[in-house]
Amino acid sequence: MPLPFTPPTHYPDYTLHLIALSLTPFSWRRQLGERLRARHDPAAILQRLLSSKPPHPRFDRASLVARASTAIRRAADCGLHLVAWDDASYPAALAVITDPPPVLWVRGNPAALTSRAVAIVGSRAGSQYGVAVAERLAADLSARGVVVVSGLARGIDSAAHRGALNEKGTTVAVLGCGADVIYPSEHRDLARQIEADGAIVSELVPGTPPQKQFFPLRNRIISGLSRAVVIVEAGEKSGSLITARCALDQGRDVLAVPGNVLTGRNRGGHALLKDGAKIVESADDILEELGLPARGMRGGNEPEDPVLAGLPSGEPCDLDALAERTGLTSARLLPRLFELELAGLVRRVGGGRFARV
Amino acid sequence: MPLPFTPPTHYPDYTLHLIALSLTPFSWRRQLGERLRARHDPAAILQRLLSSKPPHPRFDRASLVARASTAIRRAADCGLHLVAWDDASYPAALAVITDPPPVLWVRGNPAALTSRAVAIVGSRAGSQYGVAVAERLAADLSARGVVVVSGLARGIDSAAHRGALNEKGTTVAVLGCGADVIYPSEHRDLARQIEADGAIVSELVPGTPPQKQFFPLRNRIISGLSRAVVIVEAGEKSGSLITARCALDQGRDVLAVPGNVLTGRNRGGHALLKDGAKIVESADDILEELGLPARGMRGGNEPEDPVLAGLPSGEPCDLDALAERTGLTSARLLPRLFELELAGLVRRVGGGRFARV
Repeated sequence: MPLPFTPPTHYPDYTLHLIALSLTPFSWRRQLGERLRARHDPAAILQRLLSSKPPHPRFDRASLVARASTAIRRAADCGLHLVAWDDASYPAALAVITDPPPVLWVRGNPAALTSRAVAIVGSRAGSQYGVAVAERLAADLSARGVVVVSGLARGIDSAAHRGALNEKGTTVAVLGCGADVIYPSEHRDLARQIEADGAIVSELVPGTPPQKQFFPLRNRIISGLSRAVVIVEAGEKSGSLITARCALDQGRDVLAVPGNVLTGRNRGGHALLKDGAKIVESADDILEELGLPARGMRGGNEPEDPVLAGLPSGEPCDLDALAERTGLTSARLLPRLFELELAGLVRRVGGGRFARV
Repeated sequence: MPLPFTPPTHYPDYTLHLIALSLTPFSWRRQLGERLRARHDPAAILQRLLSSKPPHPRFDRASLVARASTAIRRAADCGLHLVAWDDASYPAALAVITDPPPVLWVRGNPAALTSRAVAIVGSRAGSQYGVAVAERLAADLSARGVVVVSGLARGIDSAAHRGALNEKGTTVAVLGCGADVIYPSEHRDLARQIEADGAIVSELVPGTPPQKQFFPLRNRIISGLSRAVVIVEAGEKSGSLITARCALDQGRDVLAVPGNVLTGRNRGGHALLKDGAKIVESADDILEELGLPARGMRGGNEPEDPVLAGLPSGEPCDLDALAERTGLTSARLLPRLFELELAGLVRRVGGGRFARV
């Protein structure tokens, strides 16, 4: 847990320079990540990066540090937490990606960022089906104590947040604008509910307005905070496919919910399935991928099938012998054997015989 | 092409014994298949099989041959073709399965059985969605000259036949009753349309009523006649999963159409996808699996993307250089590069550089 907000003057230069680094162009992030992981000092990193690039009026040390100070003041004004690279509560899952944010601005509970999390993302124009699936999956994951991460967007994202909240779960929204600027504004109420137990997060300094180019970038944070990314209803050009790509780059699992093939609404998700993403029908499929016990485990107490009971274990049996043991004709036995074979309980061996698996 | 129907007295003993063999218990089919493939004489095979089993009043040589003669007469009466094991028009794809039918009874055009075919099968309780998908896939395969095989059942099967007929395609229905006994009877009109250019097929002698145990068995013929089996809307216990299992046993491709995960209607199909079946969104996915050119090939005449044009081929480029070449800021470039990466046209290389693929 980070300490409650501390006034700006108490921030050491280390943090001030981390914020300044977060204001440099996004294309510098990889170099920055390497150096942060190598425990270089942020002031030194900034100095080196600036000197290796052509000078730019917006990106000189003095103006970056001044903007960083402003950001700290603004965060204090609107009650944002600052979770910086060197903070113990900086999420470990995010620290390992190639282009980690030097700092995160957080509304709500920063501890939500370090719990076991799964991202659920998808189309802004989610259908009734997509919304229902996202809500259901999020609720079922929440019931298992998994934090649900998404992007607060219209459609699937907000359905995922709502599903988690319905189950009194913790959910994290990563924004493509400042954490104090809720976009879209119709989700202000939802944001308030999220921050009660979960968190609203951004790498962008407070007050940053939403801009188109920020959304692909925040997607790497959605996947970076998560152990797996579940795609619900992504069309061919859905931004959630960028999240899926980020997840793959980051070594996270990518899963997708299938759906209607005629509407085009699932073309992106289906393309992921074709490329080997795991298919999700229920939260159990996600839990299984995470190595957690599934919710809907089937009971093993059902009475044994008479045909199965007639098959001695370890000893293949032909149809005539099985007919004798069970008192059933082969006409009755065969369809049942087919079913048992289908269920993986029986297999055919040579000579028209059947064996228990 | 088999000859037009020949009166029973002209059938050699060879054919008569093949029919008699088709009347023996289904559990003998594998042994029977081995011997037929080894070119044993049907009369000798029958003699040997009968002498190796305990005597049974229904399964003695005389009564089997008498029933075979009756079948031939009955077939003549209702205008069925007989395609026997030794017939040049016996489908080669079916001859290689472990349990081939010794004879097929065919209404319509027996040549339809030897064309390149794909099976489309699924739930009897097909939804509007499933029916629409089956019709569309069948129509699109027909437009490419692929024969559509199915089981004339309610729901998906009949939709597949109809889709093929709508496109003036050839379609084959394999029955779980005699080829002269149309089941369900509401599909009599459909059957008549099918046999105009395609075929209604059964391994069961004419007049055999539909029985539950015949349906899993006819499923091996549906897959046996086909190069691939496409599952549309199969619930957890759908009979079409038996067809899929038969297809796998026979070395045929299994493909499945995804759908709604909330209704349970696609649980069987999704289970196949989890086990590695290929996902089908359109007929192109099937054609591709068969090694045929897809229908909806994308044109290559679109003007090149300016960002892509700015990337010299074979020479990775960093963001600054790319900004200079294109005149776009990195804030504009990055989302576009993400999209191009997603489209597989650009990849990231070391040092924050991008390269054309």
